[in-house]
Amino acid sequence: MNTFGRNFRVTTFGESHGAAIGVVIDGCPPGFAISENEIQYYLDKRKPGQSDFVTPRKEADAVQILSGVFQGYTLGTPICLLIQNTSMKSADYDELQEIFRPGHADRGYFEKYGIRDHRGGGRSSGRETAARVAAGAIARRYLEKEGIIISGSLTSVHGEEVPERMEQVIRDARDQGESVGGVVSLVVSGCPPGLGDPVFGKLDALIAYAMMGIGGVKAVEIGSGVMAASMTGSEHNDQITSEGYLSNNAGGILGGISSGQDILVRLSIKPTPSIRTLQQTVDTNGMERKISVKGRHDPCIAVRIVPVAEAMMALVLMDALLEQRKIIPDCRQEP
Amino acid sequence: MNTFGRNFRVTTFGESHGAAIGVVIDGCPPGFAISENEIQYYLDKRKPGQSDFVTPRKEADAVQILSGVFQGYTLGTPICLLIQNTSMKSADYDELQEIFRPGHADRGYFEKYGIRDHRGGGRSSGRETAARVAAGAIARRYLEKEGIIISGSLTSVHGEEVPERMEQVIRDARDQGESVGGVVSLVVSGCPPGLGDPVFGKLDALIAYAMMGIGGVKAVEIGSGVMAASMTGSEHNDQITSEGYLSNNAGGILGGISSGQDILVRLSIKPTPSIRTLQQTVDTNGMERKISVKGRHDPCIAVRIVPVAEAMMALVLMDALLEQRKIIPDCRQEP
Amino acid sequence: MNTFGRNFRVTTFGESHGAAIGVVIDGCPPGFAISENEIQYYLDKRKPGQSDFVTPRKEADAVQILSGVFQGYTLGTPICLLIQNTSMKSADYDELQEIFRPGHADRGYFEKYGIRDHRGGGRSSGRETAARVAAGAIARRYLEKEGIIISGSLTSVHGEEVPERMEQVIRDARDQGESVGGVVSLVVSGCPPGLGDPVFGKLDALIAYAMMGIGGVKAVEIGSGVMAASMTGSEHNDQITSEGYLSNNAGGILGGISSGQDILVRLSIKPTPSIRTLQQTVDTNGMERKISVKGRHDPCIAVRIVPVAEAMMALVLMDALLEQRKIIPDCRQEP
Amino acid sequence: MNTFGRNFRVTTFGESHGAAIGVVIDGCPPGFAISENEIQYYLDKRKPGQSDFVTPRKEADAVQILSGVFQGYTLGTPICLLIQNTSMKSADYDELQEIFRPGHADRGYFEKYGIRDHRGGGRSSGRETAARVAAGAIARRYLEKEGIIISGSLTSVHGEEVPERMEQVIRDARDQGESVGGVVSLVVSGCPPGLGDPVFGKLDALIAYAMMGIGGVKAVEIGSGVMAASMTGSEHNDQITSEGYLSNNAGGILGGISSGQDILVRLSIKPTPSIRTLQQTVDTNGMERKISVKGRHDPCIAVRIVPVAEAMMALVLMDALLEQRKIIPDCRQEP
Repeated sequence: MNTFGRNFRVTTFGESHGAAIGVVIDGCPPGFAISENEIQYYLDKRKPGQSDFVTPRKEADAVQILSGVFQGYTLGTPICLLIQNTSMKSADYDELQEIFRPGHADRGYFEKYGIRDHRGGGRSSGRETAARVAAGAIARRYLEKEGIIISGSLTSVHGEEVPERMEQVIRDARDQGESVGGVVSLVVSGCPPGLGDPVFGKLDALIAYAMMGIGGVKAVEIGSGVMAASMTGSEHNDQITSEGYLSNNAGGILGGISSGQDILVRLSIKPTPSIRTLQQTVDTNGMERKISVKGRHDPCIAVRIVPVAEAMMALVLMDALLEQRKIIPDCRQEP
Repeated sequence: MNTFGRNFRVTTFGESHGAAIGVVIDGCPPGFAISENEIQYYLDKRKPGQSDFVTPRKEADAVQILSGVFQGYTLGTPICLLIQNTSMKSADYDELQEIFRPGHADRGYFEKYGIRDHRGGGRSSGRETAARVAAGAIARRYLEKEGIIISGSLTSVHGEEVPERMEQVIRDARDQGESVGGVVSLVVSGCPPGLGDPVFGKLDALIAYAMMGIGGVKAVEIGSGVMAASMTGSEHNDQITSEGYLSNNAGGILGGISSGQDILVRLSIKPTPSIRTLQQTVDTNGMERKISVKGRHDPCIAVRIVPVAEAMMALVLMDALLEQRKIIPDCRQEP
Repeated sequence: MNTFGRNFRVTTFGESHGAAIGVVIDGCPPGFAISENEIQYYLDKRKPGQSDFVTPRKEADAVQILSGVFQGYTLGTPICLLIQNTSMKSADYDELQEIFRPGHADRGYFEKYGIRDHRGGGRSSGRETAARVAAGAIARRYLEKEGIIISGSLTSVHGEEVPERMEQVIRDARDQGESVGGVVSLVVSGCPPGLGDPVFGKLDALIAYAMMGIGGVKAVEIGSGVMAASMTGSEHNDQITSEGYLSNNAGGILGGISSGQDILVRLSIKPTPSIRTLQQTVDTNGMERKISVKGRHDPCIAVRIVPVAEAMMALVLMDALLEQRKIIPDCRQEP
Repeated sequence: MNTFGRNFRVTTFGESHGAAIGVVIDGCPPGFAISENEIQYYLDKRKPGQSDFVTPRKEADAVQILSGVFQGYTLGTPICLLIQNTSMKSADYDELQEIFRPGHADRGYFEKYGIRDHRGGGRSSGRETAARVAAGAIARRYLEKEGIIISGSLTSVHGEEVPERMEQVIRDARDQGESVGGVVSLVVSGCPPGLGDPVFGKLDALIAYAMMGIGGVKAVEIGSGVMAASMTGSEHNDQITSEGYLSNNAGGILGGISSGQDILVRLSIKPTPSIRTLQQTVDTNGMERKISVKGRHDPCIAVRIVPVAEAMMALVLMDALLEQRKIIPDCRQEP
């Protein structure tokens, strides 16, 4: 299952060290202006090698539009976006061919498929998220025209919430060959009321699905989140006046349907599993091994998840927006 | 979107105060023994009126198998389970026809559809979850034959984690016309490795979707959950020996694929929004109103979410199990 | 797979001699007036026992709306329609428990599922189509409001095309314990241009899928149909003037998209396989047997397929209409 | 909707004169050997310029595997196949920018999307079928390992059924700037019993959907096809002996489920709509125009539909085969 969405259907493909990664978007509305530059802008935000928080690897990540756009406008036909893989040091991964890295998908892939591309995580590599960011870029441009703005940020690292201390914690982790977890917060403003379906297609459920589908995310909270369990009804209910709601514990979604308030989401992200520290593991034959993961790795993957989470939010909202169009028209005023 | 699952497809229907609620299950394997009694067993666990923690309403919730089962065995054809609505005091809800209850889906439905069945929440009523529990009962029986056991419990209420104090907190809330939130924990034992798809159909993402699709759930955590954000890589990684894993921060799922360890999930649930305390709201004309929600309501919906969460977990695992069957065979050993 | 459609999703359930048959419709627009009487009108057209062309069995086929309609209007929630099975002479089928009727699905079900409800065809009975007709009734009422009229008729029986001779052929077949095939023609007027997707969701492909999904249909033709293979380009092309098209060989669909012309479809239907004539067959143990199928059977199932084909056409168009809504709006005028 | 299939999901993309066309296959079993050469073999059969029956255009159609295959074996991850567009004489189509060719999808696209890529038919070009053939090649290789062989042939042209006369008819049409229709027949041998779902996912319905989804197909017949309407029950029923069936009017499918007999399908295909003969039409402003379609066009598209129809059959069977795997196991023997 490599497709996301029912109306704005996004199918990603590609292994980390294969020929290319990419995405096909089916269901994009026609007549909408989009350019490679606009997509590249978001890809560059995800790109590694930009600061000392992130891995110094150089990935060109240059996106190419192969179909679905004609003279600068979408045709309503499938849009294929391709990113060639150029910076591939596959040899770095030779020793990983027969050993499972703790905290990684290596063993799961092997047990599920009986075969895997071990180079750089193959299909399970974070690199696959570049395809999501590319697709999300188109959704974001469309949503912005509708006044819907998505904004994500890193709000905590290893428990620290002050920016300069967060930076220091990451640098320390990098210097020690360690890694740290973090929290990413998302705010969506301008979302119209009415998005989301009330039973199984709840907007918050779709967001949870999208966010938990990003590698490393261990918790998804909407609005009050885990705090809700310690509150009373009179504290938690968002009272309503003619001016609007008096609070936003709902996080902008009630009964699975957007209320028009800001949508508030918080993701807890585990530390990067690739660390230099020596760890116990087993190989493909079940023999015990010790491993110290070398190579260039982000000490805090939460940093790079920010643009990915924004992109996934864009995909969820774009899909819900198209879904909602089916129930708007004519017959509505009848009763 | 009232259907859950791709292989074991569950479609629920029915409003709280309509003629009936029910569910159609498409894709259930043939030749599997199931009876109304076995389904009723799980429905009775969800039924209100069993203790003073839950609402004293009497709902018969008697399930009837209308199709798909012949001489006690599933046919492989759609199974329709029906529960007639009998205890309907619709008049209780007359005053709610034009007023939106804070913390409820009332306003969202009205804005989305332009029409709603206001009686008892209509389609958004917790009563809809009886249909999920009925479908989940069939999945659970099947999974048990495969050695997969799902177990849920209420592990915290308004911050209290000691059982007798949890009970007292709920009683106090009830006496004050208030309500409290809580935490539900799920453990799945016996789950084979290999379930779940690696990119968008990750097992943890599907679980998050299923759980956040239960009304009132504000956070879903897998394994280490929100704690993951405060950990280091060497603390979080589950090291592997030939005997198995040394810890279970992953919560039984790595890279979206089950590892064979216990699956650990935690849900934070908001307090019941129906409270006697006077609150501000607006009516369908946007005029400000005050509301005190009367009637028989659970002071802590988390109590009744336990069997619903178990049922949804069963639906996720059943679906993943059938999905996995497509990639097991022959060609696997070839390379 | 017992669900039809992507937007107006119709799931049927029920075996011929089980407790009930029925259908759940998910995705019906809200605020649309519908009554049991309107649905019953179409069911009565399908009902057997109306003339001497069709089986004298009495099936009450009384439809009940269980959900999704409130005070006469659709809610936008799932609509469950139920038809209790009342006229069940299961004993008639006892001898069929271990024998496969030629021309029927008996053997296929047994080989596929390893279990079957042998009574009256079970799930493969034509009775299942009553559920399709009920769902189609709602779609037809909606389409009529949009000016789209679906009309089907029996245009040939065993090669005869003159009505009174068609009747005579059917009577003769009945008297001889034989059966005959026939042709059903469908015309859709008022269909707007633009319905259907250009590649895999072509409107004609969806129609072919819907029609070939009716038991007994062996050929589906659109417009010129089989004649197209014997024509030249200048004969077949429908030339265009400012007044409209000069012919309709396309059958109202070009490149998979409706053109605004009448949609023309023709179905060739096999003779009823249940005949008194003695035939060779085998039983569940592979032993050779002779069979003469007794009981009350339509001598020409094409007669009763007319309302079913109309219903399926309604489901296809309803689904395409909702799909098309997603690409109509705002951004369209931009380029 | 540019995706075909539920289990072996094939999504095509690309316009005729864009940068590239291609396909992503999601759900291909892992550990299966496949090479670019094997795929190229089938693409070359579809390629134009091979004989004087088909257009002398030169299309390189060189396929490249971008993902999903590692060291010659499928990974179980999405397979992206890419074909660069090289022979693009877009200027040939300049005059078609504002004029609708009779018999083509031009007007439908314009009315549906409000924008189109007019060059060579854009997305509706027959060139899109190269992507289907590439995906079908992988399915065919897999099916062959299972003993399932698909074979298609051109069996009639403009009513002629003798090969050398068929050739002459095509040459004559080409010389006159005309075109002719034809019939393509498909035979599948080695198909196991049990494929296909009994209600909406009938195997014959899926085949009809797949075949009618090929541009130019106006009729799909299974087994006896249109002849069924003129037959009696005793003529049409395929009687069964312990040796097998005595006839094959069913065309290998009964009640929507494969019987194990050869699957027989016949397609009637319209004449190529691009002809030199002067025809009436209108332009994008609704003004009347005359058109004579120049350029290199196949005088009989049925010729080139043979490999496309084979490919689509392979996709249907591959999907049904994977679907069937879900219901095979353990519980089956229980009752």
